[in-house]
Amino acid sequence: MDIAQLGDRVLAGERRALARAITLVESSRADHRAQAAQLILDLSRKNDAQAIRIGLSGTPGVGKSTFIESFGMMLTAQGLRVAVLAVDPSSTRSGGSILGDKTRMERLSRDPNAFIRPSPSQSHLGGVARRTREAVALCEAAGFDVVLIETVGVGQSETVVAEMSDLFILLLAPAGGDELQGVKRGIMEMADIILVNKADGDLKSAAMRTCADYAGALRLLRKRPQDPEGYPRAMTVSALEENGLDKAWEDMQALVTWRREMGHFAGRRAEQAQYWFGEEVRHGLLAQLEREPLKGMMQALGARVAKGEVTPTIAADEIMALLGRS
Amino acid sequence: MDIAQLGDRVLAGERRALARAITLVESSRADHRAQAAQLILDLSRKNDAQAIRIGLSGTPGVGKSTFIESFGMMLTAQGLRVAVLAVDPSSTRSGGSILGDKTRMERLSRDPNAFIRPSPSQSHLGGVARRTREAVALCEAAGFDVVLIETVGVGQSETVVAEMSDLFILLLAPAGGDELQGVKRGIMEMADIILVNKADGDLKSAAMRTCADYAGALRLLRKRPQDPEGYPRAMTVSALEENGLDKAWEDMQALVTWRREMGHFAGRRAEQAQYWFGEEVRHGLLAQLEREPLKGMMQALGARVAKGEVTPTIAADEIMALLGRS
Repeated sequence: MDIAQLGDRVLAGERRALARAITLVESSRADHRAQAAQLILDLSRKNDAQAIRIGLSGTPGVGKSTFIESFGMMLTAQGLRVAVLAVDPSSTRSGGSILGDKTRMERLSRDPNAFIRPSPSQSHLGGVARRTREAVALCEAAGFDVVLIETVGVGQSETVVAEMSDLFILLLAPAGGDELQGVKRGIMEMADIILVNKADGDLKSAAMRTCADYAGALRLLRKRPQDPEGYPRAMTVSALEENGLDKAWEDMQALVTWRREMGHFAGRRAEQAQYWFGEEVRHGLLAQLEREPLKGMMQALGARVAKGEVTPTIAADEIMALLGRS
Repeated sequence: MDIAQLGDRVLAGERRALARAITLVESSRADHRAQAAQLILDLSRKNDAQAIRIGLSGTPGVGKSTFIESFGMMLTAQGLRVAVLAVDPSSTRSGGSILGDKTRMERLSRDPNAFIRPSPSQSHLGGVARRTREAVALCEAAGFDVVLIETVGVGQSETVVAEMSDLFILLLAPAGGDELQGVKRGIMEMADIILVNKADGDLKSAAMRTCADYAGALRLLRKRPQDPEGYPRAMTVSALEENGLDKAWEDMQALVTWRREMGHFAGRRAEQAQYWFGEEVRHGLLAQLEREPLKGMMQALGARVAKGEVTPTIAADEIMALLGRS
């Protein structure tokens, strides 16, 4: 594959080239990894376009697909180009990702100004996240104005999505009476904007109550230096009736504009690049455990540890000694 | 130091030897680490005594100190020997740990059948946890019947405490009306028994309501194979008035007895040993990043990554190549 040529075609915004480039960064083959690294490096030097990267988290049932479709269609109607990616470490098991079935977003997937890509199939969140981060950079180089990075609320996936996003949006459903709607405090603290969806029909008043609850909870959080007055904020939307989406987009743009002017936008991207550098190195170090000879050694020693024949510390010291750096 | 002799004195239950042995395992000096590993290995071979290791989590304000003192005094009054350890990664900053001030548990600290040890001073949870895990093994070898491992509810500390405990107890305070008492679902899923403290005076009815709420929430969780019928469970206690502590202890013993008979007790300890083996190895691999030459290389490259001069992936590849294992 001619990497320079592929890069030029991505920069020209060719969808097939973009899809092929993402397939390349998702590959775990060593030669593909090297080509992908070269491609990303080339593009980072040639590309000046900057998308707004929007992380979007929401558990199943909050209407995430409907929201992405309605929100995406609104953006493309304004002439903006929209890419949708996903971080879903469970996609391997389910045999397809949360975005694998494009019929979930039938209208958006047929829109020439939209590009939808399922989550890479990897069993570890770290692997999914590292590949998606590179796919985001590719979409940006391909001239997309908005890159939506979707995740389900499982474990640490919100954290890694926030580390590749300029904005982090939390999508919630109206809460029932005494229902346990446990949004973790850490997730709430990451959110720039909380959207309570399904503010339509019978659920409208429940959505407004839930929104008021979260607005109150957000006021209890300490103000962050990267936020202007009034952020983070909570608002209601109806993805079904396409209500409130324009207001949500206005608020996202206002926040981005303020952060750009204050230097927080570039500062956050610089911090994120350092974070991913550290992640890549940590992954590289730990990946040795998944390969021979370390893998077999760990299994053999692990069995002895479980039987109580050797203590965990002594066994670990043996491993480190074998690696020549105890 | 004569490690064999120290080990024999620990096995004989000498408190000063135990304190000295714990100081040894907490040391980060390489020669001390080697001696500590040898000591733990010796003791694991010579010791047959098995304590009940009880992990106890509770945020500040739930009355954890009062509970540990009352519960500990009840156990020592029954002739049992009780050790209290702590996992508190914040202890470095506060200049002393949550258990540093023994006046917090004045009666228990003067009890000859009790042994109280503050959290080791390390800035990383991983370091605190690995040392505390070894201290637990020392207390067990010293013939303590019950080892209480206390932690505050910060981040991942409950997880590591659960990985060194036979039972995991969550201590809660009565919840006020619309107060946000966010117990993370993951923490609740780890709990074997939830104790709602302060079921006394004005708070008694609130404690009973809170207990009923949590009992209801626990019923929604899937039954775990390691639990007999009726577990996990929630109950009220008053550490102040020393009410309900005997019932809590009975239930803990019943659970331990059942798990011993079903093989889950030994199975869990074997799994935990493998977990800590993996942790030690992962720590050993990542610890290289904190030492030269890697530390300086990471800083220099990190600065270039932040400026956008090199991509995170290429920079990480450079590090791995320098380590000779890309």
